[in-house]
Amino acid sequence: MERRSFLTRTGAGAGVGAALLAAPAITHAQPAVRWRCTTGVPRALDTFFDTTTDAAQRISDATGGRFQMSVAPVGEIVPMPQAVEAVVGGVVEAAHVYAAWYTGLDPTWAFGTAIPFGMNTRLMNAWWYKGGGGAMFNDWLRPRGVQYILAGNTTMQMGGWFRREVRTLADVRGLRFRIAGIGGNIWHAAGAVPQMIPAADIFPALERGTIDAVEFTGPHDEEKLGFHRVARFYYYPSFWSGNGGLGFLVNLRAWEALPAEYRHIFTAAAHEANLMMVARQDSLNAAALRRLIAGGTQLRVFPMPLLRTFHDHATRIYTELNAANADFRRFYDHYTRFQREGAGWLRIGEDSFNNMMSELQRPRAAGAGEQRRPS
Amino acid sequence: MERRSFLTRTGAGAGVGAALLAAPAITHAQPAVRWRCTTGVPRALDTFFDTTTDAAQRISDATGGRFQMSVAPVGEIVPMPQAVEAVVGGVVEAAHVYAAWYTGLDPTWAFGTAIPFGMNTRLMNAWWYKGGGGAMFNDWLRPRGVQYILAGNTTMQMGGWFRREVRTLADVRGLRFRIAGIGGNIWHAAGAVPQMIPAADIFPALERGTIDAVEFTGPHDEEKLGFHRVARFYYYPSFWSGNGGLGFLVNLRAWEALPAEYRHIFTAAAHEANLMMVARQDSLNAAALRRLIAGGTQLRVFPMPLLRTFHDHATRIYTELNAANADFRRFYDHYTRFQREGAGWLRIGEDSFNNMMSELQRPRAAGAGEQRRPS
Repeated sequence: MERRSFLTRTGAGAGVGAALLAAPAITHAQPAVRWRCTTGVPRALDTFFDTTTDAAQRISDATGGRFQMSVAPVGEIVPMPQAVEAVVGGVVEAAHVYAAWYTGLDPTWAFGTAIPFGMNTRLMNAWWYKGGGGAMFNDWLRPRGVQYILAGNTTMQMGGWFRREVRTLADVRGLRFRIAGIGGNIWHAAGAVPQMIPAADIFPALERGTIDAVEFTGPHDEEKLGFHRVARFYYYPSFWSGNGGLGFLVNLRAWEALPAEYRHIFTAAAHEANLMMVARQDSLNAAALRRLIAGGTQLRVFPMPLLRTFHDHATRIYTELNAANADFRRFYDHYTRFQREGAGWLRIGEDSFNNMMSELQRPRAAGAGEQRRPS
Repeated sequence: MERRSFLTRTGAGAGVGAALLAAPAITHAQPAVRWRCTTGVPRALDTFFDTTTDAAQRISDATGGRFQMSVAPVGEIVPMPQAVEAVVGGVVEAAHVYAAWYTGLDPTWAFGTAIPFGMNTRLMNAWWYKGGGGAMFNDWLRPRGVQYILAGNTTMQMGGWFRREVRTLADVRGLRFRIAGIGGNIWHAAGAVPQMIPAADIFPALERGTIDAVEFTGPHDEEKLGFHRVARFYYYPSFWSGNGGLGFLVNLRAWEALPAEYRHIFTAAAHEANLMMVARQDSLNAAALRRLIAGGTQLRVFPMPLLRTFHDHATRIYTELNAANADFRRFYDHYTRFQREGAGWLRIGEDSFNNMMSELQRPRAAGAGEQRRPS
């Protein structure tokens, strides 16, 4: 008990508090700043939208309300496809977007979010912040007059909602699947027919059967969109989104006009968004998945032989992209080199723990003791 | 090309920049503050120590240098075991520590870092920030006059360096293993002899063979400490550290004396530390593990039957702790309930991707095609 006694004292010693008074208050002028930020989602997609408004709140809090960023849902200022143009042209100071939405402009944009069979969330952060990936991406963006500050992650996305099971390549052929980007190219190569449908039109299209399947993000968002009411099979993993990084695309002229403290505070808010969106996703997705399964959703894992086929198509598509686009190739080489070493580490330093925990959840065979061998 | 043309313009439109000038500069007084922060590690353990100094730098940057926190390595102000007392007593305003170092005061401290067979890094953040864990921990700390702001994570720790292989319980009996806390209790229950040795004395003890094994953190730190030069077998996973959260322990009187903006800026710096330490660890550990293996280190996974035995001992020890300590029990119930649902989600929503990527790395069996079955 003696060792604990000091913990029961509530009061603090004389040293603390004095720190604040030791130096005179310095009067310091900080300008009032108003920014506008467009996002790529409606308010209802709260894991994304609230991440944006939380960041704006943190910026306001840290500046005593002097730096205000107003947040507009998709379409209020510009539609999602025009968000890059709006930041480049200075219509808004910032946009909160998935870089991968803009692979139609240049596939190199994908490296700001994820590429198929690419990094998971841990690796993306390691590459982006400590492996040179983020600096490389912003060097690439600089001539466009913008930068991209990573600020959120959906984490691995689910494979999507399917009206019928996908067991072999025969089930893929002709499948009308709502999916975009390089992932869509891979499904197309395997015989599917990728569909681009605005988010608001997905549910009716899936309900009427004009599409067979849709991928979006994860359980919490998708439960809100009601996909489980019109498609029974919920597949995983999305080999095309091992993570789903999003970020603030910021106009560089507006950025450079900010006081240095505000730039640091904005960056800190983006980093917080990246940490907190993952925590929020995990908390909400866990609860949503439980409800979905209780409601009759059938979980399905894509069969490994099919995943190998998709992987073969991906390899060929990367060869083509690398041959056609020198920027893409430079990123691809850098990214995959980091991924190889990093994934090797995480298999040892992370997956081993998770797989052990998973194994411990399984019922033990009757009569098996310490020396039981894995069956 | 038309779709891309706007991206080649470097200049920004008239709207941007004007935002800064639209409002008059407001003169705002912010006080100069000086804090002292003790850490639990020497400067050389850079993944931890640099996380502390980086946080101090971010706080300074975001306040234009007006809020300065000086960082002292372990022992310069107080030794590691006295850090809690130093913050409670106001000798320092803050300490950057693993909460689990203080399980000798009360085992409930462990929930600020990790408990054996507990959460991984993703779950810890989800529970702490969005599952009520952090608020619960700080409610528990409040009567002591301190709070704990999560600020870093080692991620899953390695199982440690062993001079001989550990295959069955017979190899555990009598094993002199440098390990502390609840993890140490579990090894003790299985027949090992846990040793508490100050960090600086580990290497010579392992070299002379007065201990048989040591666990510390991960490849980067341990390579620096040279354990691979005197122990050949490098085990994983550490079932006792699925993550390794650390945080700023802060004196509440000092905290409440801060201007609101400074509290927000400090919290943001702690959140950034949590994000960035993981990115740093992953980047450095991947490179260190490669070097260690190239240098002859033998990687070994703890056999699953042995892990089941440890798990059985852990279950019994938790029953005892829950019976003896009502605070521990309240946390344990809350934590394990969150863990069960969250781990179920992550097996679907994260592990499935990582295990697929791992499987794709394996050489394909000769002649196997799309329909190949897992062997």
